[in-house]
Amino acid sequence: VACHQFVFLEKVDVLEVARPGATFLLNAPYPKEEVWDNLPREVQEQILAKRLKVYVIDARRVAEENGMGGRINTIMQTCFFAISGVLPREEAIAKIKESIYKTYGKKGDEVVQRNWAAVDNTLANLHELTLPSSATSARRKPPIVADAAPDFVKRVTAVMMEGKGDLLPVSAFPIDGTWPTGTAKWEKRTIAEDVPIWDPKVCIQCNKCAMVCPHAAIRAKVYEPSELEGAPESFQAVDFKAADFKGWKYTIQVAPQDCTGCNLCVMVCPAKDKSNPKHKAINMETLLPILDREKANYDFFLDLPDPPRERISHLDVKSSQFLVPLFEYSGACAGCGETPYIKLMTQLFGDRLLIGNATGCSSIYGGNLPTTPYTVNAEGRGPAWNNSLFEDNAEFGYGIRLSYDYRLQYARALLKRVAGRVGDQLVSALVNAKPHGDGEFAEARRQVQALREALRGDPSLEAQQLALVADDLLPKSVWLLGGDGWAYDIGYGGLDHVLSTLRNVNILVMDTEVYSNTGGQSSKATPLGAAAKFAALGKAVAKKDLGLMAMAYGHVYVASVAFGAKDTQTVTAFQEAESYDGPSLIIAYSHCIAHGYDLKFGLEQQKLAVGSGAWPLYRYDPRRIAKGEPPLVIDQAPGKVRIEEYMRNETRFRMVEKIDAERFRWLAKMAASHNAQRISLYEQMSHIKFSNQSGGGGASPVASVAAVAAAKGISPGMPVSEGGMRTDAKTQGNGQ
Amino acid sequence: VACHQFVFLEKVDVLEVARPGATFLLNAPYPKEEVWDNLPREVQEQILAKRLKVYVIDARRVAEENGMGGRINTIMQTCFFAISGVLPREEAIAKIKESIYKTYGKKGDEVVQRNWAAVDNTLANLHELTLPSSATSARRKPPIVADAAPDFVKRVTAVMMEGKGDLLPVSAFPIDGTWPTGTAKWEKRTIAEDVPIWDPKVCIQCNKCAMVCPHAAIRAKVYEPSELEGAPESFQAVDFKAADFKGWKYTIQVAPQDCTGCNLCVMVCPAKDKSNPKHKAINMETLLPILDREKANYDFFLDLPDPPRERISHLDVKSSQFLVPLFEYSGACAGCGETPYIKLMTQLFGDRLLIGNATGCSSIYGGNLPTTPYTVNAEGRGPAWNNSLFEDNAEFGYGIRLSYDYRLQYARALLKRVAGRVGDQLVSALVNAKPHGDGEFAEARRQVQALREALRGDPSLEAQQLALVADDLLPKSVWLLGGDGWAYDIGYGGLDHVLSTLRNVNILVMDTEVYSNTGGQSSKATPLGAAAKFAALGKAVAKKDLGLMAMAYGHVYVASVAFGAKDTQTVTAFQEAESYDGPSLIIAYSHCIAHGYDLKFGLEQQKLAVGSGAWPLYRYDPRRIAKGEPPLVIDQAPGKVRIEEYMRNETRFRMVEKIDAERFRWLAKMAASHNAQRISLYEQMSHIKFSNQSGGGGASPVASVAAVAAAKGISPGMPVSEGGMRTDAKTQGNGQ
Repeated sequence: VACHQFVFLEKVDVLEVARPGATFLLNAPYPKEEVWDNLPREVQEQILAKRLKVYVIDARRVAEENGMGGRINTIMQTCFFAISGVLPREEAIAKIKESIYKTYGKKGDEVVQRNWAAVDNTLANLHELTLPSSATSARRKPPIVADAAPDFVKRVTAVMMEGKGDLLPVSAFPIDGTWPTGTAKWEKRTIAEDVPIWDPKVCIQCNKCAMVCPHAAIRAKVYEPSELEGAPESFQAVDFKAADFKGWKYTIQVAPQDCTGCNLCVMVCPAKDKSNPKHKAINMETLLPILDREKANYDFFLDLPDPPRERISHLDVKSSQFLVPLFEYSGACAGCGETPYIKLMTQLFGDRLLIGNATGCSSIYGGNLPTTPYTVNAEGRGPAWNNSLFEDNAEFGYGIRLSYDYRLQYARALLKRVAGRVGDQLVSALVNAKPHGDGEFAEARRQVQALREALRGDPSLEAQQLALVADDLLPKSVWLLGGDGWAYDIGYGGLDHVLSTLRNVNILVMDTEVYSNTGGQSSKATPLGAAAKFAALGKAVAKKDLGLMAMAYGHVYVASVAFGAKDTQTVTAFQEAESYDGPSLIIAYSHCIAHGYDLKFGLEQQKLAVGSGAWPLYRYDPRRIAKGEPPLVIDQAPGKVRIEEYMRNETRFRMVEKIDAERFRWLAKMAASHNAQRISLYEQMSHIKFSNQSGGGGASPVASVAAVAAAKGISPGMPVSEGGMRTDAKTQGNGQ
Repeated sequence: VACHQFVFLEKVDVLEVARPGATFLLNAPYPKEEVWDNLPREVQEQILAKRLKVYVIDARRVAEENGMGGRINTIMQTCFFAISGVLPREEAIAKIKESIYKTYGKKGDEVVQRNWAAVDNTLANLHELTLPSSATSARRKPPIVADAAPDFVKRVTAVMMEGKGDLLPVSAFPIDGTWPTGTAKWEKRTIAEDVPIWDPKVCIQCNKCAMVCPHAAIRAKVYEPSELEGAPESFQAVDFKAADFKGWKYTIQVAPQDCTGCNLCVMVCPAKDKSNPKHKAINMETLLPILDREKANYDFFLDLPDPPRERISHLDVKSSQFLVPLFEYSGACAGCGETPYIKLMTQLFGDRLLIGNATGCSSIYGGNLPTTPYTVNAEGRGPAWNNSLFEDNAEFGYGIRLSYDYRLQYARALLKRVAGRVGDQLVSALVNAKPHGDGEFAEARRQVQALREALRGDPSLEAQQLALVADDLLPKSVWLLGGDGWAYDIGYGGLDHVLSTLRNVNILVMDTEVYSNTGGQSSKATPLGAAAKFAALGKAVAKKDLGLMAMAYGHVYVASVAFGAKDTQTVTAFQEAESYDGPSLIIAYSHCIAHGYDLKFGLEQQKLAVGSGAWPLYRYDPRRIAKGEPPLVIDQAPGKVRIEEYMRNETRFRMVEKIDAERFRWLAKMAASHNAQRISLYEQMSHIKFSNQSGGGGASPVASVAAVAAAKGISPGMPVSEGGMRTDAKTQGNGQ
């Protein structure tokens, strides 16, 4: 039995499967002398009772010493062959080295050499423990979930987390396929070796650390000073500097057991100690010594009230991070480039979100049972999430939109019938409400509450029906999420069809430019020159220009964003997309482990992608047409970064150079030329204003469907469907 | 029993189902006194034997007299109710008028009035025949197919044509699902009332009549004067005027039994008799009196040898019509706007065509058993045609391409192994051959023939294998055909995927802007303002810009054509698309009965579509990039035609105005503005030359994959796949 993550000993009954006299290999982050005392007592007892042979290694240290960062797979493999006796030791070592050459040869000699050195150093660091005669540890295995967890989590989720889900009876599960949200927070994985610690003296309060965190594991909050009463002594707080919450306190706090140690927050932090430029406002520290302290700090932080959303007058990178994320602690990879977008979406619109999620990474970390990262706010409101298939997500999400549009119609029809009884003013407020932004939303919620109260005691059928569906009077924010495999390839036919309609759906494509979750196959989003499965020598066809294809419709809001390159543009695009009363598409650059580099450099790579022209940043907003402005705005012109600079930092490109340097040069040249072409076209497009050919001579030329519809006071989403079939009674008979 | 088409009496045993004493209603194109003598003798005998009551009407004449053109449905319906006794006559007439109002009300009052008048005039023209006591006719039912037909046609096809296919045993059918081509010519439908007759004195020999004919039923030929020996006296011929075939004779000849009388040839004819401008070089004449004469003329015409393809130096509208069409006499509607494109394709590439056809109109008239319009030339070569499903045609055709690419590879590999025996010169000629155009193709065919002869008697395995696959050494022209329902909607996901590859496929989208075959449902190709099922009040979303979406790839050849607006551009686009060694897409404006007007005006409507900006004409050729030219060429700038001019001629637009005039104006304004937008964007694009950003400083900037691949001497279609996986042995091991 081998355990490669020490913390698993606290969560899983690892030694349950060990036979008496078996060998146990343990990766432990301690000197060999300290391992025994750090074992939970239950584990010690099992070892002694089963008379196990125990080998230990600090594999992480060996990996680091050999320049391999946190990669311990080669080391643990070597340990296995050294002690299992499957092959003679010398023969096994030779075979491992051969296998390393085969696997990593195309990634470069250096990678091979580092792995070989790690193998050689492994045996010197592998030790057999001499066991005492009885269990001595003061540490006990903690309960799987905290005592404060809800009943369902304790009764069902925890059993599955422990790996014993097969023992649950069918009756333990919800009968309708729904699954409670807000449960990832009970799964304290504690997988980071180092976590970020805040230095308020250096901090400039930009909140970028919270913005980029893939796991919502570093957070910002403002709160009234009185709330600090009873804070742990170690809890840090400073005066908040901006005018918005004058006189309030400000804290940046890590979630020590949920952080994955990816380093993105440190990398993005722009604040440096002048006397020591290596010291930032966020710095990584070893977790173990400070774990208990930061747990207490984080618990206190969570209990601080969230600032009232209505008080945030302008939403930008900074203020958006004061909104509570309703997507937290997911199982996404450390440093994931997708999840910051999802987190931001839940911060901005989380209390009114309906999500259709395509199959892919985001459906795995988004709904990877037993726990779910989507959660609820203090009022119990949060996203409703669903996953149908890989190929049908656009249609699926479109169906959600249609059904809510018709539910709204139904609720409004009932509302008109009770108007005399509940008052015209309230009815008219509810019918005309198109709340955008948190303030208006809160007001609309109060009106719905007032309606419920007015209906109470009304025995009529319509009043009772309306009470059941009153919440449908509030607009819903429908989002379709997925990766490039879905949006560019497998689900594209449906995506295109949904874009061709006028319904209000928001589409977020988290573009890793490759089938990440299924193992790195080339998609139509894979860029020129990148190696991927089915494109082993570097893709020779340019990346599909999904944005241009969507812009070709004219009525679709389209944004191309990269939060690591220009976070302000990302936040703007999300708000514009959501507020647009028609289909919106956000194509979001998402760095990914499939690109082959340490993701702590993900934000740098995003900057190079934009700077080299590989990833243009733009927003196409059909509403600008009505203002006489070109709908397309280029948010950042590419800089002088050579495409090779961007490409050489990522293994997906570099391995092509290794195999065929001439081909790499050829592909890079093509990529540069193709990117220049695209940018030139966008540049031209960004100057095209639309004149009205029909000769009406109006001062304000109109062009897109949305603009004209708006000019006529027709919501493109509702009364006139894209087919032009009016749903009001007046013309329905005639039109058939 | 009713027979609405007199000619059916000669083809189908109409009265087989009549019971003794039954009533028989016949639409006959004769005065009532002449009907009896024009019945085939077999029909007379059945009428007398079964003691039928016979009513006759010349419905076509009644329809014409009431301004309804050839539409006889209302008239025949009235006859039915008048004589069937299902309802009292007066009540029936009232109900018919009510039903007319319901059905046609939205098409305008005039249409309703015309139909009502036709009903009123019907009864005066419906006569019961007084029957003689015995059959007297000298006319006999002709055999279903001519005696010259092949055995299979007589044994199987003819039985099905007669409506008795159920009597055929399974053993009568081909065992592998294939079906003989070239059989439509045996099904002499003779459905035209009037056919075009040529006046050589007025003719300017432009061949436009042959170009636009949807049924290949009017043809042009040049031939040596000596061939005229034995011509029927009525056969017309004049000296051919152009230099190409100096001293040869020239004839335009109608196929009298295959013509549908659509009038397009007359409408397109630019030559007018100066003394009588109503008299053109082609004029419609009543068929019946000249049928036998023109049958003889057409038979003689077909027997004249086709001019040798290699002698046609330059392919344009005129010369292309001397190439024999390998698509003829299909069951498409009279005046169909799709079939002229297919006919042209078969004229240009027919002897080397492989077609994957999406389901839709083109799969019905293209493979509507028992007969098939695809046929073979004098050497027995013609298109191979297949239909899989509606949704998968792009993938299906792509598979045909892939399989032939690999068959070519296999044949070449065998060829190399026999090189020593058959001679290096022949081998090298065959390996390097990339024949384009008929002359080179004929040479390549001669080389394959020489190879077969060289292999004869060679007992080696590879020689025998090569002999089996030698034809695979000749390139195939792979075409994927379908309508807009396929290309824009149901099959778009696959189409887009095929466009993203570098394989040599040619895609022809015959765009009727609506689901024509399934009954007129809106597709994403339906333009702004057009009424269709699911868009009864006029579509409020702009037509999807499939061309721009394909151009977004950069390596796809894209053309937008309309043969009625600019036929020269159509012929050029087909040749460019086929010669491009990558994916090509032709989007072809196809007027259609679903647009709601007499299709003899189809060419005029095409001109208005282009002139108003509704249908831009352009060609995007990635090969131009390598020459330092913008890849996009706009072939015709829109004129000053107002969009309403185009729209008001078609019922699909006009019925919107009828229902809601304000909405019509709004939609027309949007359409004008949207079209201006598109054209402005294309205009900008047509000026973008691509500079090489990568700083190489080369004089000839490169951009597209195809251009670069060509510059490197790599066929983008073959040795390097789009994934960049080389298929040659040298790098295969490394690349995996």
